[in-house]
Amino acid sequence: MLLYRMTATEFLSSGLKVEDYVRSLLDHISARDSEVQAWAYLDKEYVLSQARQLDTIPPEKRGPLHGVPVGVKDIYYTKVNKESLIDMPTQHNSPLYQDDAANVNVDAALIMLLKSAGALIFGKTTTTEFASVTTGTISKNPHNPTRTPGGSSSGSGAAVGDLQVPVALGTQTIGSIIRPASFNGIFGFKPTWGAISREGVKICALNFDTMGFFARSIEDLELLADAARLEDDEKPIVPSTIEGMKFAACKTHVWPQAGPGTINALDLAVKLLRAQGASVEELELPEEFASVRQSHLQAFECDARSTFMNEYIRAKDQLDPILVGFVENPTKLSHRDHLNALDNLAQLRPKFDLIASRYDAIVTPSAVDEAPEGLASTGNAALCATWTALHTPVVNVPGFVGENGLPIGLSLVAPRYHDRRLLKVAAAVAPVFEGGGWKSSL
Amino acid sequence: MLLYRMTATEFLSSGLKVEDYVRSLLDHISARDSEVQAWAYLDKEYVLSQARQLDTIPPEKRGPLHGVPVGVKDIYYTKVNKESLIDMPTQHNSPLYQDDAANVNVDAALIMLLKSAGALIFGKTTTTEFASVTTGTISKNPHNPTRTPGGSSSGSGAAVGDLQVPVALGTQTIGSIIRPASFNGIFGFKPTWGAISREGVKICALNFDTMGFFARSIEDLELLADAARLEDDEKPIVPSTIEGMKFAACKTHVWPQAGPGTINALDLAVKLLRAQGASVEELELPEEFASVRQSHLQAFECDARSTFMNEYIRAKDQLDPILVGFVENPTKLSHRDHLNALDNLAQLRPKFDLIASRYDAIVTPSAVDEAPEGLASTGNAALCATWTALHTPVVNVPGFVGENGLPIGLSLVAPRYHDRRLLKVAAAVAPVFEGGGWKSSL
Repeated sequence: MLLYRMTATEFLSSGLKVEDYVRSLLDHISARDSEVQAWAYLDKEYVLSQARQLDTIPPEKRGPLHGVPVGVKDIYYTKVNKESLIDMPTQHNSPLYQDDAANVNVDAALIMLLKSAGALIFGKTTTTEFASVTTGTISKNPHNPTRTPGGSSSGSGAAVGDLQVPVALGTQTIGSIIRPASFNGIFGFKPTWGAISREGVKICALNFDTMGFFARSIEDLELLADAARLEDDEKPIVPSTIEGMKFAACKTHVWPQAGPGTINALDLAVKLLRAQGASVEELELPEEFASVRQSHLQAFECDARSTFMNEYIRAKDQLDPILVGFVENPTKLSHRDHLNALDNLAQLRPKFDLIASRYDAIVTPSAVDEAPEGLASTGNAALCATWTALHTPVVNVPGFVGENGLPIGLSLVAPRYHDRRLLKVAAAVAPVFEGGGWKSSL
Repeated sequence: MLLYRMTATEFLSSGLKVEDYVRSLLDHISARDSEVQAWAYLDKEYVLSQARQLDTIPPEKRGPLHGVPVGVKDIYYTKVNKESLIDMPTQHNSPLYQDDAANVNVDAALIMLLKSAGALIFGKTTTTEFASVTTGTISKNPHNPTRTPGGSSSGSGAAVGDLQVPVALGTQTIGSIIRPASFNGIFGFKPTWGAISREGVKICALNFDTMGFFARSIEDLELLADAARLEDDEKPIVPSTIEGMKFAACKTHVWPQAGPGTINALDLAVKLLRAQGASVEELELPEEFASVRQSHLQAFECDARSTFMNEYIRAKDQLDPILVGFVENPTKLSHRDHLNALDNLAQLRPKFDLIASRYDAIVTPSAVDEAPEGLASTGNAALCATWTALHTPVVNVPGFVGENGLPIGLSLVAPRYHDRRLLKVAAAVAPVFEGGGWKSSL
């Protein structure tokens, strides 16, 4: 097995030196980077020096993520490494922050937690501008470079999908983890809103921004969840197979936007689950949930208004027109609209938790379809946005395939703060979804 | 008039050089600093160099806050000044962040907005550790140095109260602006939660942390609100006197904790308002609002758990025991408790807005009483916490006096996003509350 193909879990149990694993990843990146362009910042010498340093740590002092390379979306602050004095800038894909790069020099809380566990902060992955728009990323889908890898966590999704790092960090405000996870044929995990501190991560919309992860196995997501100290109220006890489990297939009120690939995937998923002895109900959310989409978008835009006021005042000519629009507010969204939207979502959340608590997980689309043609847009987030608005945990499980042979994933959803239980359920579901017909050629 | 006594508004209309105003403030600080100890970081040479630089800006290029010195609570990130290469560290009153001080080098969004308006970032004011506890601040009440200035925005409250700067920044998660404003005999303004971006301010409890201001006049609060781009849905039209205005006096469900000074202040305020032709109803909040206090404290503690996980994992021996407790959670608060608390407060907010919309403002206590004796604790925040939990704007208006001659303020409260209207009402109320019997001897 080529070393770079290893998951983090496989590497950790391999006994390999960090440097050997990292060299394999860096060689693979050298071969692939011009096609995929997943990195906003990557200093190979820095990575190697970190790897060598980690290799000097005696085994009894090594952390649970010892030497695991982590790609970091370029809106998480990352600090100068004191030993090497090499800088890892944070630039938000914004011209406003390019001169200042060397000064933005603090580690996000999640970066510190991962470093404490021994992880190797590998480099910064591309994002759309401030993770707040659907254009402007240079990254390409590793399964077909004429197509988008999704966004806004574009580089994290593409890098993990292309075996350039085993795991990576993303953020999701509408659909910025689950959509690229689906497009790149990998697992994506958006935990409960607020479960992981957002300290040191540029704000897009405060009421929705959620820290999360990409990986190529549920075991790797479990490792990251451990490092982030995610815990449910009760330690989950979940069988390792889905026989007897209870699922709901939920199309949500945005289902009319689903394309043929997603329609087929959900249909096939229900059959696969039932064939393995699980029950699957069709779940139609109560009519009041039809308002989620509009409330989410309105609250997002209004949140973003105060977020980008600062950059707007300083240099609006250097801001994406969409961000200028959030501040200038041409549709005249009022504070009243903002509050109505926030209050509406807040009252829906406990209602949804109650519905979701009747199932082991809700199965629902991750994206409209396979990754669309072209690089101009990172695609439509409508089909995964509901769960961001409702603050629930979501896992994208790959396995299905679109008309053009590209991957399609489906989401598993659980009530808020049932993150670890959801990962266990996803571990049981993942091998079943492998029957969905997609196989990576990478 | 001694220059340091000027408010920001008075300075701006004076035609004085920034350097002259700043020298007067610095001289005053030299005389008073050993008694008040409001500053976590103050570099007089840096301040003077900034003042001189501001004086070179031609009048037509000056911002609306040109040269206005702003004290900054030491949980707002502040950046190296490129010209002087002098560092303004951010240390959160935590030993964990003292070595790293030079590396934490980014400006908070509000700092950038104030700089864009021409403000002079004067220095960092003291805070309790991470603005999250009620102990450990060195600052003293300028009106009586054996007493606390309150907290956690201790230095900002004390510095403005002691005429060391005209205005300062604070944050409030429970009662960290309104309480010190009351204790120091000044105006404090906690805007609607989320109205000002929290980018670059250390998190305590994400669902409650609110950026706000201290000043010695409502005009100065208006200047700061302009710079922060606070706007209501409608431009407020409020008479300059209170005749015919409609107020409610609200004791809230925590009123049994009120001391004699606050009981007298609220009683006197009602009389003063009525004597000037305003109507004042007694408002008793519906019984379900009795849950606000417990929901707020539970949600605060649970929010703080994910906040301090990072510092706890890295060095729990360097954390205040209260913060260790948030993470270790000895009272076994569950995620279920957290969600119940958040969901309960969320459903109360629109109900409170509706009640508050019947009045020009609700008049309610700011603190239990005058600043208590001693410096060990920054005092009890119970009487101003309700409005933090409900996300409403609050202004502390000084004017009343306690049994020991120290100041007591009262709060004016309005529905969410009626911030500018509330400031206008406060401007009409402030001269009335001057009849409350307190006069600063400073």
